[in-house]
Amino acid sequence: MSSSPSLTEFLEKNLPGPERTHLRTSVIPTLLTSVAKVGQCLRSSLSIQTAGSTNTSGDSQLNVDLATNDIVHAAVSTCPSIVSASSEEDEGENPVKHAFNSPVESGETYSVAFDPLDGSSIIPANWSVGTIIGIWDGPSALNQPAQSKQIAAILGVLGPRTTAIVAVRLPGSTSPLCFEVGLSESESGADIVVSRESVRFNDAASVKTRYFAPANLRAAAQDAAYRKVIDYFIEKEYTLRYSGGLVPDVYHAFVKGHGVYVSPVTSKSKAKLRVLYEVAPIALIVECAGGKAVDPVSGEKILEKSVVDVDDRSGLLCGTREEVELVMKMLGEK
Amino acid sequence: MSSSPSLTEFLEKNLPGPERTHLRTSVIPTLLTSVAKVGQCLRSSLSIQTAGSTNTSGDSQLNVDLATNDIVHAAVSTCPSIVSASSEEDEGENPVKHAFNSPVESGETYSVAFDPLDGSSIIPANWSVGTIIGIWDGPSALNQPAQSKQIAAILGVLGPRTTAIVAVRLPGSTSPLCFEVGLSESESGADIVVSRESVRFNDAASVKTRYFAPANLRAAAQDAAYRKVIDYFIEKEYTLRYSGGLVPDVYHAFVKGHGVYVSPVTSKSKAKLRVLYEVAPIALIVECAGGKAVDPVSGEKILEKSVVDVDDRSGLLCGTREEVELVMKMLGEK
Repeated sequence: MSSSPSLTEFLEKNLPGPERTHLRTSVIPTLLTSVAKVGQCLRSSLSIQTAGSTNTSGDSQLNVDLATNDIVHAAVSTCPSIVSASSEEDEGENPVKHAFNSPVESGETYSVAFDPLDGSSIIPANWSVGTIIGIWDGPSALNQPAQSKQIAAILGVLGPRTTAIVAVRLPGSTSPLCFEVGLSESESGADIVVSRESVRFNDAASVKTRYFAPANLRAAAQDAAYRKVIDYFIEKEYTLRYSGGLVPDVYHAFVKGHGVYVSPVTSKSKAKLRVLYEVAPIALIVECAGGKAVDPVSGEKILEKSVVDVDDRSGLLCGTREEVELVMKMLGEK
Repeated sequence: MSSSPSLTEFLEKNLPGPERTHLRTSVIPTLLTSVAKVGQCLRSSLSIQTAGSTNTSGDSQLNVDLATNDIVHAAVSTCPSIVSASSEEDEGENPVKHAFNSPVESGETYSVAFDPLDGSSIIPANWSVGTIIGIWDGPSALNQPAQSKQIAAILGVLGPRTTAIVAVRLPGSTSPLCFEVGLSESESGADIVVSRESVRFNDAASVKTRYFAPANLRAAAQDAAYRKVIDYFIEKEYTLRYSGGLVPDVYHAFVKGHGVYVSPVTSKSKAKLRVLYEVAPIALIVECAGGKAVDPVSGEKILEKSVVDVDDRSGLLCGTREEVELVMKMLGEK
């Protein structure tokens, strides 16, 4: 739509002032452009092959896992204020080697943590997958209070189009940003247009269709509490949408204005998601959209914990506040 | 992969002879190129809007529904041997107005039936969607024995990449073709590479992970037989993959080599899928890959029936042969 503002216009209006100049003019635009490039990379990969290696999480790596990791790292290296970075495809958090000789002096320093290509299992079937990026205030993402220090996050969907939802919540700010962008490729990198200026879950009263996304449904065969949750969704006639890709599954709820995503932890199925690369960035976006994101074991808010190690794992229960509380109650009764 | 044959090379080798020259050199390549163009169209549609009209099925039409319909029609009009066409977005089957003045004399005549953009409900969330095309021998697709007259079908997935599975089963031929292509855009239209020369369901004995895609799960709340099927999948620890897009949901099974898709018909939920535009083309591909596609009400093979009207509807139970037979048995016990 011609009436949609450009990213630059939108951020100048909604994130003004000199304190976050780098975040506004460098970090967010550059990382979003890297998401557009990840989309381009997938499109030009007519055949998806195994690279023959495994990442630190033990997943076998696809050729596109490595290529897209390089794309996001290259983007990070052009941002003077990003001083450290970690990726699901790397080991640990590392200082950023910048693409220039003398880093610009700046009061702003950031650390980014990202999963360049989430959803490897559905890439061969050509289903939508995603890129997840968390942006932390200060030189490291580790051992920080996530609630205040993870100040922004990006959830990019690589599908028929390339789109992303961005959340920004600065310390002391009363109104966090949560907006959606469309990323189209251009010769200079990407044209970024703000397609929705406010992404919010709908009020419970106005919800017509209720959606659920039950991850690791196989765990319901052994876990009575999770099975009870599934039976509840079926009996209450919720609409099923579950692609098996964390990013599209969560993104669906933001677009429809309703949804609940459950990745449970049971006696036979361990916590599987990475807090730093997956759960924490998603939790920030969910909260900025008016939803709730909790650990399905304790019921504690995801962002109340610090990330101690890059490999910290957890389950995830997130989405519309009412449904999250209801499911937590059912899971807690085991 | 550099070792993958081009579409032209593959078809010359596997569909030789003068009898199907138009099918080989015009119909299949042109329709596949139109699928690539549908992918391009979606990518350039940063905002998806309602066109303000409804199609003959009563669905509200998106701007991209109309644009992609025009793309496939334009492709059809350049194929002299395609004499009639029908689309889910149009009314009825109509003669093709060719893009040239004097149609080429040919012993071959075809009718095509297509759904240019299947999966409207998940387009806003940027999930993979699809294009479905059935190719019928002779001047019309209506009131023909589907088993012998629907001789080819295309299932295109519009996702991070654009890919398609093509099935060709000519009368009298003992070995149908079922292959996958990758479609990349080039200035001249599309580069089409055969990424898998044979798409087949795995033998039951070699299946490690079993997948299921339960459409219209809400129907399980009122229908004991469908609920029993769902409970069976959960208890037997099948892996859930259900995007709600017919094309990606069925395509997933072809890529993984296993899967069962169920779109049931119950007392409260009518037959929903269009036989001509959706069910019949998918049934041909499923059969050519060694699977089974049946009407979940009667258990009859989808292709044993003729399509009488462009709006004929049915449920669909398809995929791995063993699972289809098992589910049919459970549904029949109601």
